[in-house]
Amino acid sequence: MNHVGKVKESEARIQKLEQQLSVFQKISRLMVREMSLADTLQAVVHLVTEFTHCDACLIYLLDNEELVLCASSNANSPDLGKVRLKLDEGLTGWVARERRMVAIPSEAYKDARFKSFRDLPEDTFEAFLSVPVIARNRVIGVINVQHRQSHRHSGAEMELLTTVGEQVGCLLVLARMAPDVIEQKNHAGLVIDNPPITPPVRQ
Amino acid sequence: MNHVGKVKESEARIQKLEQQLSVFQKISRLMVREMSLADTLQAVVHLVTEFTHCDACLIYLLDNEELVLCASSNANSPDLGKVRLKLDEGLTGWVARERRMVAIPSEAYKDARFKSFRDLPEDTFEAFLSVPVIARNRVIGVINVQHRQSHRHSGAEMELLTTVGEQVGCLLVLARMAPDVIEQKNHAGLVIDNPPITPPVRQ
Repeated sequence: MNHVGKVKESEARIQKLEQQLSVFQKISRLMVREMSLADTLQAVVHLVTEFTHCDACLIYLLDNEELVLCASSNANSPDLGKVRLKLDEGLTGWVARERRMVAIPSEAYKDARFKSFRDLPEDTFEAFLSVPVIARNRVIGVINVQHRQSHRHSGAEMELLTTVGEQVGCLLVLARMAPDVIEQKNHAGLVIDNPPITPPVRQ
Repeated sequence: MNHVGKVKESEARIQKLEQQLSVFQKISRLMVREMSLADTLQAVVHLVTEFTHCDACLIYLLDNEELVLCASSNANSPDLGKVRLKLDEGLTGWVARERRMVAIPSEAYKDARFKSFRDLPEDTFEAFLSVPVIARNRVIGVINVQHRQSHRHSGAEMELLTTVGEQVGCLLVLARMAPDVIEQKNHAGLVIDNPPITPPVRQ
């Protein structure tokens, strides 16, 4: 490749990295704002949709042994709160059960793990990227990114979604917090009265 | 600048952006791990030190009306838990009180807001970058990045530290969480039973 080509390639890479950073910064800002969890998850879905140019982004959260659709890039979807998947059903169930990412660039609907799901919002999509939502080291949900056309997922998309899965987990934990927890007057005591588990290395 | 120069410049920019992303991804991973808060803050201080090549990174947290030094890039510092600043003292106090970032590239020790602090760990540093730690929209501490030599802080450094300030705030809130909170069986209910505050836009 000549230098002009290289400059262009670098510029595109810089733009993508800046976008990726911007998503993290915006989610971080969501973490410190006082918003309803439903609004916050919608905002996350919007950021992921913008970054991946996907046709649908869905967040499922666990209710006992079932995954419930809790946020969708279609904010008015009648499926919200209605679609429920068991953990042994579909790619989404597989991701939650196995705690592993799945990336399928085309014909996702033909995947054997998909076969019994003819009536789900995932059904008409070629490409499917899915990661677990993790809180305190446990799976508590799944995020899916879906494209109608074939789409080879980039490393940046996979990395971003993995981190978003962790951040959504934190948002869920934060939402469980009593609103007055920050009224606590002594934050330093949390650290100082609970010294490191690992002994400091002598320098 | 010729094309070779531009390619080199772009490569440096890409490397810095990748580093910045890596810091966020690593802090995100810290958020889902089960670690003591002291260990987690030390890990954050280490990541910030690596990114900014600073000579000292310090985290102060509030105990009532005082800021207490809770983490330091010198993990064995005898000042940990000992150095206490009032909110009307020093640049660190100013940042907490005003909820604003301060970036001073040189002679930070000459800043009027600094003058009464001859015995603090900040004292011998030329450059000083400081941001508030925010949790639930309140200031609960301050993070300082200090260089012995003059240092013009980059936009990336300021942005990174601002976001780290928010993430440390989240880590503090998460640490207050009862360990069994994630044992809750219904995460979906948190969203579904508390619909968005803003009405969805009809499409």
